[in-house]
Amino acid sequence: MPNDEQLIRDLIATWMSATAQGDLPQIIKLMDEDVVFLTAGNPPMRGREAFAAGFQKALRQFHIESTSDIQEIQVLGEWAYCWNHLSLTMTPHAGGSPVRSSGYTLTIFRRKPEGSWALFRDANLLAAESPTAA
Amino acid sequence: MPNDEQLIRDLIATWMSATAQGDLPQIIKLMDEDVVFLTAGNPPMRGREAFAAGFQKALRQFHIESTSDIQEIQVLGEWAYCWNHLSLTMTPHAGGSPVRSSGYTLTIFRRKPEGSWALFRDANLLAAESPTAA
Repeated sequence: MPNDEQLIRDLIATWMSATAQGDLPQIIKLMDEDVVFLTAGNPPMRGREAFAAGFQKALRQFHIESTSDIQEIQVLGEWAYCWNHLSLTMTPHAGGSPVRSSGYTLTIFRRKPEGSWALFRDANLLAAESPTAA
Repeated sequence: MPNDEQLIRDLIATWMSATAQGDLPQIIKLMDEDVVFLTAGNPPMRGREAFAAGFQKALRQFHIESTSDIQEIQVLGEWAYCWNHLSLTMTPHAGGSPVRSSGYTLTIFRRKPEGSWALFRDANLLAAESPTAA
C-alpha cells in the first residue's frame, strides 16, 4: 500500500493532469465538500460548487497546463499540509499569448473515512509573471 | 489550564500587540527557528533572522497596527492550523497617509516540547486596500 505522503503526491499529480484535460468531475472528487480556497484580494471561495463555477468559466477561455515542485509534505494523523511551488500556463483558445503565473501554495488536506485524501484549505499565492524580454 | 485553541489565540494577540510596540524579541519567541513565511511574488522568507531583518527595516519606517478576525483554528495533536483575516495599518514615522492592507492568512503552528506553540509556516495573502473616496 502506498503511504500517505505518496497518496498526497498522487492527488496533486491527478489534479494537474485533470486540469490540463478540463476534467472537472475528476478534480471535484479530490476536494472536500466544505473546501475553502484563499487568494489575495478576493473573498474566500467556499465549497465545490463555487470552485466548479469558476473553473468552468476559466476552461471556456483557456487551456491550463501546470507544473509543481513540492517543497514539503507533513502528515499529521488524519490531516496533512503541503507547501508547493506551482507554475501555470493559461493558453487562450482564441489564440494570443499564453498567460503565465507562478508562486507558492500552502494546502491542508483531510483524510476521508475510506482512507483517501481530500483538499480542505488552500492558500494560493500565485502571481503573474512579467513577460521576459526576447 | 487554557486549552490549545486558546493558547493559539493568545499567541496571535501577543504577536499583534508586540508588533504595535515594535517588540521584536517578543515576536521572535512566537515562531519556530525554522519558520517559513510565504507571500505573493517573493521567494520564501526562511528562519527567524530573515524575519528579524525585514521587521526591523519596516519598524524604522512605520508604526504598525493590526486587527485580526480568526476564521478557524484546528488543533491536530502536536500541530495546528489557523485561517485568519488580518487588517494592517502602517503609519509612516515621517508623516503622510497610512498604508492599509487586508486579507487572509493560513498558518501552521507546531507545539514546542514545553507545551507552548510556535508559528511554523505562514501564507500571507494581504493586499493593499485602495483608498476610499472621502
